[in-house]
Amino acid sequence: MVKKKITYKDAGVDIDKGNEAVKRIKKIIREIGLSSIEEIGHFGGFFPISIEKFKNPVLISSVDGVGTKLKVAFMVNKHDTVGQDLVNHCVNDILVHGAKPLFFMDYLAMGKLIPETVEEIVKGIAIACKENNCLLLGGETAEMPDFYKVGEYDLAGFIVGIAEKNKLIDGSDIKAGDLIIGLASTGLHTNGYSLARKILFEKLKLKPESYISELGRTVAEELLTVHKSYLHAVSYLIENGLLTGIAHITGGGITDNLIRILPENLMAEILLDSWDAPPIFKFLVKEARLRQEESFRTFNMGIGMVLICHYINKEKIISHLKDKKEKYWIIGEIKSGERKVIYIKREQRHRGAKE
Amino acid sequence: MVKKKITYKDAGVDIDKGNEAVKRIKKIIREIGLSSIEEIGHFGGFFPISIEKFKNPVLISSVDGVGTKLKVAFMVNKHDTVGQDLVNHCVNDILVHGAKPLFFMDYLAMGKLIPETVEEIVKGIAIACKENNCLLLGGETAEMPDFYKVGEYDLAGFIVGIAEKNKLIDGSDIKAGDLIIGLASTGLHTNGYSLARKILFEKLKLKPESYISELGRTVAEELLTVHKSYLHAVSYLIENGLLTGIAHITGGGITDNLIRILPENLMAEILLDSWDAPPIFKFLVKEARLRQEESFRTFNMGIGMVLICHYINKEKIISHLKDKKEKYWIIGEIKSGERKVIYIKREQRHRGAKE
Repeated sequence: MVKKKITYKDAGVDIDKGNEAVKRIKKIIREIGLSSIEEIGHFGGFFPISIEKFKNPVLISSVDGVGTKLKVAFMVNKHDTVGQDLVNHCVNDILVHGAKPLFFMDYLAMGKLIPETVEEIVKGIAIACKENNCLLLGGETAEMPDFYKVGEYDLAGFIVGIAEKNKLIDGSDIKAGDLIIGLASTGLHTNGYSLARKILFEKLKLKPESYISELGRTVAEELLTVHKSYLHAVSYLIENGLLTGIAHITGGGITDNLIRILPENLMAEILLDSWDAPPIFKFLVKEARLRQEESFRTFNMGIGMVLICHYINKEKIISHLKDKKEKYWIIGEIKSGERKVIYIKREQRHRGAKE
Repeated sequence: MVKKKITYKDAGVDIDKGNEAVKRIKKIIREIGLSSIEEIGHFGGFFPISIEKFKNPVLISSVDGVGTKLKVAFMVNKHDTVGQDLVNHCVNDILVHGAKPLFFMDYLAMGKLIPETVEEIVKGIAIACKENNCLLLGGETAEMPDFYKVGEYDLAGFIVGIAEKNKLIDGSDIKAGDLIIGLASTGLHTNGYSLARKILFEKLKLKPESYISELGRTVAEELLTVHKSYLHAVSYLIENGLLTGIAHITGGGITDNLIRILPENLMAEILLDSWDAPPIFKFLVKEARLRQEESFRTFNMGIGMVLICHYINKEKIISHLKDKKEKYWIIGEIKSGERKVIYIKREQRHRGAKE
């Protein structure tokens, strides 16, 4: 009897393909003009930290995944946007505390290592790192047979940023009377995709290439729109101490994310008709017959980031957002009361009278 | 016709289960006595960085996954060790550059969020963070229906450490004549599991609870042995400038990991009979009929970390390793020659004559 010889490659792990992927990663990073490429191949990434500018530097770090938005990328075999989603998501998560990005690392796990796909994914990561002045310090590409289907993968990212301690933003300066400003999202960003896919692909039996007239584009174009980074619009406002709170509207929507930064005895009163949710949200809410409460916990409903400021700074902020061509709306106000987020229609507020 | 109402929960994402998982995480972290628990719930983790002690601080960062070792945890529904594997792996990856850990973050993606399993996993992470004097700064727990089977998950980790620039270790001080010291691994650590599982469960049709007399324990006990951290054994050697190079023996084995730190025109000559590989490696190599070359690129073969030092420091290092009860062997020597790792038997070396 001839015994079958089992090699590591038979077992689904291909070190040579891994090496080819690393070569492609180095090339794409060089082309995009990110530095630190010589570090790839080390066990860890090196980041010399210049702290002369800081009195009390605080590192702010965050980890995130892309979630099931990846499934849409798999469907159309287009992998150069999900890395941008991931980096921008991470940048926003530390920006809300007042931090600027220092460096980023990715974790990419694939069922079967396909060097071309790795290259596309890392290209997206590198593009967004460059846009956000963030070093791509390294990453892990793992081949995981039996975990992911061929052509599928999971992607997570880790970011480290820095802020001066006394400029950290955590919502503790929020006062009654503060304004709530909403910055426009570009679409679903990276949340609500499990439900959106269920509605679009299972219930409505649409294809990624189906054109939806209400949206003016195809399903895939809508769903793969890149999650936006608010770094360049917001960092000036942070540096100048114009904001009392910032919330990144991700999973859990405005409801769950805005409440995180509210101090005790303050509520956020959101005016439902103060902005116009983009067509995709109206479409999904209608098709899923979501109650209002649920829609605001599932989707960002057109608001990707919420800024809170004292009323006195309103004009400065608006003028800056206009300069940056950032789409925004005044969407509500902080009021005294039980710590929660409530949604009201403008007429309800007027019936409330006092103002 | 009554339309079916699709909720976010129907789509496989359960925010309330997520909140329960967060509660359990907070509890376990409190019980284990890690600090920074109040940060959970923020968008990012805060790490005030004390850099007074450093002239030129460098942050060293690494990202890793557990790989298919997770499959063994799934088979026996035991989830409190994989987090330790992950943290220890990350700690070792930055230790080789001379860094001590500052903080850690995890990414956990599950098909169906099971709060009890999340708790077990995070317990392992928290135990290892505590052992390695590392803050658990935060994490992402994602529910990803359609990605992972019920009861399955992927787990990745991200570590940030710090070192003084002029004490960084990158192998550039390695000289011909330096000694190569191998520190014992506890088993497979986190590499070679795809192949090991194929041999044990597919070829030999063993069960996790099967007792293997050569190993003196069950398959699951062997395969779930925790990947060891070398922090406490090695950091004293780093602080005292006793090492010229360190390699963490992970995927790619001694061959691919040791070469990473070799300068040009130096080779690492490993003496094959200088240590005794634990039974699991002999068993797997025999059953898979691996060629020697392949076995040293697939498994750690009993060596979890390689230290390189000038000959003059040999006694100091050995004395310290003995104090720390760390199992070690002198496994080879650095020689002039083409940059590569070669394996020879002791008699071959003696035939080589010069010595």
